[in-house]
Amino acid sequence: MQTIPASKQPTKSILERTVGQKPGSLNISPEALVPRLFLVSFDEEWYEAREFSDYDELMEAYREAPEARHWIDVRGYGNRELLERMMVDFQIHPLQMEDVVNDYQRPKIEEERNRMFIVSRMITFTPDKKIDDDQLSLFTGENYVLTFQSDYEDCLDILRERIKGGKGAIRRKPVMYLAYAILDVVLDNYFPAMAQMGEYAEDLEDCLFRNPNKELLSQILDLKREVVKIRRIVWPERDKINEILRMDDQMVPHELKLYFKDIYDHCVQLMDLVDNYRETTSSLTDLYLSNVSNRMNEVMKVLTMISTIFIPLSFIVGVYGMNFSREDPEGGINPLNMPELYQPYGYVTLLGFMALVVIGMVYYFYRKGWLTKD
Amino acid sequence: MQTIPASKQPTKSILERTVGQKPGSLNISPEALVPRLFLVSFDEEWYEAREFSDYDELMEAYREAPEARHWIDVRGYGNRELLERMMVDFQIHPLQMEDVVNDYQRPKIEEERNRMFIVSRMITFTPDKKIDDDQLSLFTGENYVLTFQSDYEDCLDILRERIKGGKGAIRRKPVMYLAYAILDVVLDNYFPAMAQMGEYAEDLEDCLFRNPNKELLSQILDLKREVVKIRRIVWPERDKINEILRMDDQMVPHELKLYFKDIYDHCVQLMDLVDNYRETTSSLTDLYLSNVSNRMNEVMKVLTMISTIFIPLSFIVGVYGMNFSREDPEGGINPLNMPELYQPYGYVTLLGFMALVVIGMVYYFYRKGWLTKD
Amino acid sequence: MQTIPASKQPTKSILERTVGQKPGSLNISPEALVPRLFLVSFDEEWYEAREFSDYDELMEAYREAPEARHWIDVRGYGNRELLERMMVDFQIHPLQMEDVVNDYQRPKIEEERNRMFIVSRMITFTPDKKIDDDQLSLFTGENYVLTFQSDYEDCLDILRERIKGGKGAIRRKPVMYLAYAILDVVLDNYFPAMAQMGEYAEDLEDCLFRNPNKELLSQILDLKREVVKIRRIVWPERDKINEILRMDDQMVPHELKLYFKDIYDHCVQLMDLVDNYRETTSSLTDLYLSNVSNRMNEVMKVLTMISTIFIPLSFIVGVYGMNFSREDPEGGINPLNMPELYQPYGYVTLLGFMALVVIGMVYYFYRKGWLTKD
Amino acid sequence: MQTIPASKQPTKSILERTVGQKPGSLNISPEALVPRLFLVSFDEEWYEAREFSDYDELMEAYREAPEARHWIDVRGYGNRELLERMMVDFQIHPLQMEDVVNDYQRPKIEEERNRMFIVSRMITFTPDKKIDDDQLSLFTGENYVLTFQSDYEDCLDILRERIKGGKGAIRRKPVMYLAYAILDVVLDNYFPAMAQMGEYAEDLEDCLFRNPNKELLSQILDLKREVVKIRRIVWPERDKINEILRMDDQMVPHELKLYFKDIYDHCVQLMDLVDNYRETTSSLTDLYLSNVSNRMNEVMKVLTMISTIFIPLSFIVGVYGMNFSREDPEGGINPLNMPELYQPYGYVTLLGFMALVVIGMVYYFYRKGWLTKD
Amino acid sequence: MQTIPASKQPTKSILERTVGQKPGSLNISPEALVPRLFLVSFDEEWYEAREFSDYDELMEAYREAPEARHWIDVRGYGNRELLERMMVDFQIHPLQMEDVVNDYQRPKIEEERNRMFIVSRMITFTPDKKIDDDQLSLFTGENYVLTFQSDYEDCLDILRERIKGGKGAIRRKPVMYLAYAILDVVLDNYFPAMAQMGEYAEDLEDCLFRNPNKELLSQILDLKREVVKIRRIVWPERDKINEILRMDDQMVPHELKLYFKDIYDHCVQLMDLVDNYRETTSSLTDLYLSNVSNRMNEVMKVLTMISTIFIPLSFIVGVYGMNFSREDPEGGINPLNMPELYQPYGYVTLLGFMALVVIGMVYYFYRKGWLTKD
Repeated sequence: MQTIPASKQPTKSILERTVGQKPGSLNISPEALVPRLFLVSFDEEWYEAREFSDYDELMEAYREAPEARHWIDVRGYGNRELLERMMVDFQIHPLQMEDVVNDYQRPKIEEERNRMFIVSRMITFTPDKKIDDDQLSLFTGENYVLTFQSDYEDCLDILRERIKGGKGAIRRKPVMYLAYAILDVVLDNYFPAMAQMGEYAEDLEDCLFRNPNKELLSQILDLKREVVKIRRIVWPERDKINEILRMDDQMVPHELKLYFKDIYDHCVQLMDLVDNYRETTSSLTDLYLSNVSNRMNEVMKVLTMISTIFIPLSFIVGVYGMNFSREDPEGGINPLNMPELYQPYGYVTLLGFMALVVIGMVYYFYRKGWLTKD
Repeated sequence: MQTIPASKQPTKSILERTVGQKPGSLNISPEALVPRLFLVSFDEEWYEAREFSDYDELMEAYREAPEARHWIDVRGYGNRELLERMMVDFQIHPLQMEDVVNDYQRPKIEEERNRMFIVSRMITFTPDKKIDDDQLSLFTGENYVLTFQSDYEDCLDILRERIKGGKGAIRRKPVMYLAYAILDVVLDNYFPAMAQMGEYAEDLEDCLFRNPNKELLSQILDLKREVVKIRRIVWPERDKINEILRMDDQMVPHELKLYFKDIYDHCVQLMDLVDNYRETTSSLTDLYLSNVSNRMNEVMKVLTMISTIFIPLSFIVGVYGMNFSREDPEGGINPLNMPELYQPYGYVTLLGFMALVVIGMVYYFYRKGWLTKD
Repeated sequence: MQTIPASKQPTKSILERTVGQKPGSLNISPEALVPRLFLVSFDEEWYEAREFSDYDELMEAYREAPEARHWIDVRGYGNRELLERMMVDFQIHPLQMEDVVNDYQRPKIEEERNRMFIVSRMITFTPDKKIDDDQLSLFTGENYVLTFQSDYEDCLDILRERIKGGKGAIRRKPVMYLAYAILDVVLDNYFPAMAQMGEYAEDLEDCLFRNPNKELLSQILDLKREVVKIRRIVWPERDKINEILRMDDQMVPHELKLYFKDIYDHCVQLMDLVDNYRETTSSLTDLYLSNVSNRMNEVMKVLTMISTIFIPLSFIVGVYGMNFSREDPEGGINPLNMPELYQPYGYVTLLGFMALVVIGMVYYFYRKGWLTKD
Repeated sequence: MQTIPASKQPTKSILERTVGQKPGSLNISPEALVPRLFLVSFDEEWYEAREFSDYDELMEAYREAPEARHWIDVRGYGNRELLERMMVDFQIHPLQMEDVVNDYQRPKIEEERNRMFIVSRMITFTPDKKIDDDQLSLFTGENYVLTFQSDYEDCLDILRERIKGGKGAIRRKPVMYLAYAILDVVLDNYFPAMAQMGEYAEDLEDCLFRNPNKELLSQILDLKREVVKIRRIVWPERDKINEILRMDDQMVPHELKLYFKDIYDHCVQLMDLVDNYRETTSSLTDLYLSNVSNRMNEVMKVLTMISTIFIPLSFIVGVYGMNFSREDPEGGINPLNMPELYQPYGYVTLLGFMALVVIGMVYYFYRKGWLTKD
Repeated sequence: MQTIPASKQPTKSILERTVGQKPGSLNISPEALVPRLFLVSFDEEWYEAREFSDYDELMEAYREAPEARHWIDVRGYGNRELLERMMVDFQIHPLQMEDVVNDYQRPKIEEERNRMFIVSRMITFTPDKKIDDDQLSLFTGENYVLTFQSDYEDCLDILRERIKGGKGAIRRKPVMYLAYAILDVVLDNYFPAMAQMGEYAEDLEDCLFRNPNKELLSQILDLKREVVKIRRIVWPERDKINEILRMDDQMVPHELKLYFKDIYDHCVQLMDLVDNYRETTSSLTDLYLSNVSNRMNEVMKVLTMISTIFIPLSFIVGVYGMNFSREDPEGGINPLNMPELYQPYGYVTLLGFMALVVIGMVYYFYRKGWLTKD
């Protein structure tokens, strides 16, 4: 019943930040998963994908192939020492590592000395109709891309297959292309989530026409807020890509910019979609409220028709239930006191008259259009 | 009854994009039509328009007249090999060809090395009151304009006639003028669609005053969304033209810019129209909702008048239906128990009194203004 | 009753544009008036105002006085040949002449080679409470101002008198000042139209408080749209003037800019007024809707008071209309069956009791504040 | 009752402008007051404040002390000749003098040749709950500040006292500081007006909770418009100050800019306050409308409870008011026809049953929460 | 009951400003606390924190360690002489000291000659559900940070502990880092206040679903205004930080900018949160209003069902309460006058018929869905 509070959970982690702690301190949540370490190394001819249980082994494998391109993939943050070693090895600023671990950052990009730090959000539309968004933090180096995420599962397997299959440009182009490919897949995953959201909106609309109930409005308003939430993610996502597009050609080669321009177009399409959904949910709210009024109208009409027909009739039969006496207690006769009661056809006539009243009323309602089912 | 979901169809194709596919891969829908190839070649004196069943023949015809201007017109995408050959022959970037085929792009323009890639949308207002928008992708080259569209039918026949008739500047001016003429015709076609939309809005309004029903509101809200949809198409259309206006004079000769400025003005007029329609639909929504309230008011008034007249009368006749007994069971007389019942004119007096009550009530309602048909 | 459609007429001409016609083609409406030609020629000492039936004579008169300043004033477009000759004589671009004739253009300015093309709109508030806007197209040349308008009547007679009377700077200053004066008078005419609109808004408000009816809301909403329409005209009008202010001093002498700055201030005042009216109409809508609710409330109160007083009373008299029998059919006596009916003061007591109930109820309503006329 | 029209008065003067008059012509209203002339002259050691009945005397006094700083203060515009002489003596452009006299100008600043023309508005919150705004026009010269206002009373006496008392920087700093001080006092006077407005808003809110009536809504909406009106004054006031801040240091010495920055901060605070009041009035509107609904709800509940209790009871007593006959006219006995009527405890039993029905109903309403006063 | 006025208190101090006072005059409130003076001095090895009762002693201690970094912390403004001495000693401009003391300033930053004056607001969410905001004014010098606040209690103790503990960069880095650390802690304290606000919003929502009452709406609207108030604080807070980020590297070393960028990100997160809460409160308003309608609907349904069942039944029993007489007063028999009354099973049949009517009605309501508890 109370669907709104749940929707605030995702932001809870922000609200629980520890006040006044040293900037750059790693505030690792006790529920953080034990990190799993993956290394995908490849060049045009060669490909190797391994999981390492030991960070030293990973670094050794990485250093052994200085000519190749590497994707170092860390899933789970539950090891402070590991993260601190990586900060040293990959020259990550403490504030950036804090951003990685705090796990709620708007999509953003930071650039320094030919290296980029990019935060993206991977969204899914959960079965309880919420947008769930996980953070993907990405660092680029000369020959590596380093990604961090909090869960073991992600949406990038399809990309790993593509690298493995050696299809396309990904094996030939510089490591920046790998960063592009990751961002592209992350953003592509917004579309199915949006599609599920659209289906849910249609379900709500069906429900609105078939079987509206009290919870419906708060479901619609919840959906509206999820839509707004996506909007708040997609906007900075677009700005982020735009910032890449404006970087100089040394940082991002001109040829790659065409690809980022493609992501940019997708962001704009997403924003169109999001705005479309916003209007849909607004329409649904309007329809819901007018539905409530229409049903009230219908109830009132039934009441009014029944009352308008039977209240006058009740009056009539009340008249002939009066006890005006034909006979005077003094023995005289009052012939004007309800002589109708003594007519041979009085009762039948009255029934007929009442039938006429009913027919007249029904005709009146018909003319008013109250009998049609609108 | 459920008019909203249908309005989302046009965007479905976006939502069905395949996640994680290689960028620039041509994701040709199985329903795509077999391409038909048209070539219109002309210079100031000469004109030829042919359909080719074979791409090689087309290319040969095109290459035979290097001095002329050509409009190569491809309708239907259902041949991957053809498209890949054209990418090579006309130096089209894979991402651009992907934009052509994916068939849902916002209007945009990309410029590179004196060549332009322009995406426009051709809209029609369908009989089921939706905006249907098809994509027209246009590439300019030194002596050709290359267009792609998904359907065999388009709105450009009038332009083909103009070229054939040799009327006007189109046969004399550089090939960029042909591109302008195509964009102009595409945008001119927005106006009849808008006019149909306006007529539909008037129909809805008539309906609102004559015969409002439950579906009306969702029809109004649907129309509103179609209006917003056009708005989302016209805005980038304007930006696109604006970008052309800001290009340097080598790319777009100064003389041509006057013509593009004309298209720009049309875009601005379209946006005025769209905003006009948005307000109209908002007004309609307000009117609909106030209509619902007014009808409820009317229903309540009927109920109240009937009740207010007959409930007191029923009470009165109820009084004289009581059985207070003039005769005491012990044989005495209770002269105060309802002596009215025994008056010779009691019944008639009472009927007269009730008539006065009715007249008084009706006068009261008249004074309140409830009897007028407001 | 259907007041909205009428408000769309002015835009109809846009919607009826012929699709795909050659750019710059003059699409003269068959209803266009036969052009009347006026020439006002003057310098500091000399003044002459003539109407010509023949264009050649006009040109001759114009060419005879190359030192003077001229205002060539064409009213009505119904002569294609004439317009085409003028395009040649005054070097008007076909697209500009198309803008003149098509007669629906947003206020705009185009500048080229020390010549300006300015489109303004002259508005009047018609008796049927619409904003009627006619186009005034103005070209400036070295020693002339050339204006086009569709009707014979305009709002510039006062300016013609000023030129004739030789009052003020108009006879001394360069011809650009004449252009300024025309624009100034056109804009000054917005204020009386706005004043009439304001009076109409007050009438509607009076009506709202005195005698609200169903049409009132659509009248308010219509007014709102007229207000928005003016807003859409005043905004580009302001931009237009702003563009003039930003032109270099050769085009518009610095001294003249002070005057244009004055028009700019008027535009800003107009926009304040327009925003003021928008809020007024919004308030009126709110008041109307709350009025509907209040009247419903009043109706409900009457119903509730009547029902609450008489339904319990009807129950009471119903009780004493029951036929419980004091005499057992077996001949015994049931003294508990409605002994009240046989009391000597039963009836009177009951009437008194019911009077008390009524008094109590009325007091209850009084305490609730329902009897006051809120 | 009709509170809105009154609120439009202040803008009437704009609407009554004479159309087509010569630009820069002084359109002095016949109600304009006879000008009173004041001169405050001072330098660091010396101070003199005089009122002059004759303009020549004033000018003489002004010219006698070329080293001092002067504040020439003209109150009332009712002397065209005087104004025209001042235009010459102080080199005021006719259009600027027109702005002074027309008396409705948005706050603005014009700068030319080291002289400034500043228009400010002095607001008061009148007892009839309107914002009254008078114009203060200010010209700066090398050694003087020249102000114009339409009324004899203003809010600057406190500043005159400060000059007289010789307190602070005002006697030492350049004349631009005097201009600053005037603008500062004018703006400081917005705060008490805002405070009164806030108190009035609280009164309206009290009224809303204690004793809502029909006029309340239009009072709230009127207040809203006054708030918007202030907003429209404060915005350009801020822009004006901002323009001063961006002037070069020769015009406004760097040291003075700190002071103007202080006024700027006050403008921003005013805008915060205005936005706060806008939300307050919006909240009040919402509360009013929900109040109307709640009262309707309450009325409906009373009706429903009374009806729901008594309609079934009336039915029951109606049953026992039927005349089904135990005795057959043919003399037989129909023992099934209403035997209850003949039971010794029939009547008492029925009364008890009805009491139970009432208790049950009341309990049902209690469970529904309808008896609590929500 | 009247919750709105209270929310305006915080702004009262602005409204009570003394009009026309000398700029830069210290308008110390009589309730201002006696200043307490704190000095925290430290360098990399050394740390000392003392409270001084005498300003001279503090200055002596401060001057004794010119190599160290100092945080001079003044709490309470109730000593004009002290403040004036500090203005001289620390070269504070009178207008800035006025800003410190007036205690209502939007967050802002002023920079001059390598010194900064920063105004921040420390917010808390009070138990009566208001946002309470106190001002922290901060001056930076070469080797000191000087802060002013009105209360003895603040939220910076955690930072004092950090300095004392010598943890982190704070003891090593330049004094600008101390300023950063203070701003960071102040902003970190917004998050718990926001969290409490979020919990309160959830409480209101619970209340809305469980036990809505009249005050609820004004509580929701109050919350909305608190949210807007925070928004008005966070916006300039962000602008302030942004201004620091744009300062040149001499003023704020590049290395420090990374830290300020971190605060900037927090501001953006706060704004996201605030926007989230705004939507929540809007949803709550919508839900409240639809709740009112739904309850009205429910009330109407009960009334309609009771009326629709019993009004026809009452009519029926009324029919058989009529007194049409079988016996003619002249002694004849009228066999058509209500023969039903004399049937042996008349009464039972009628009861059965009425039972059928009830069943039919209930079935009708069931089909309409009125019996379900929607």
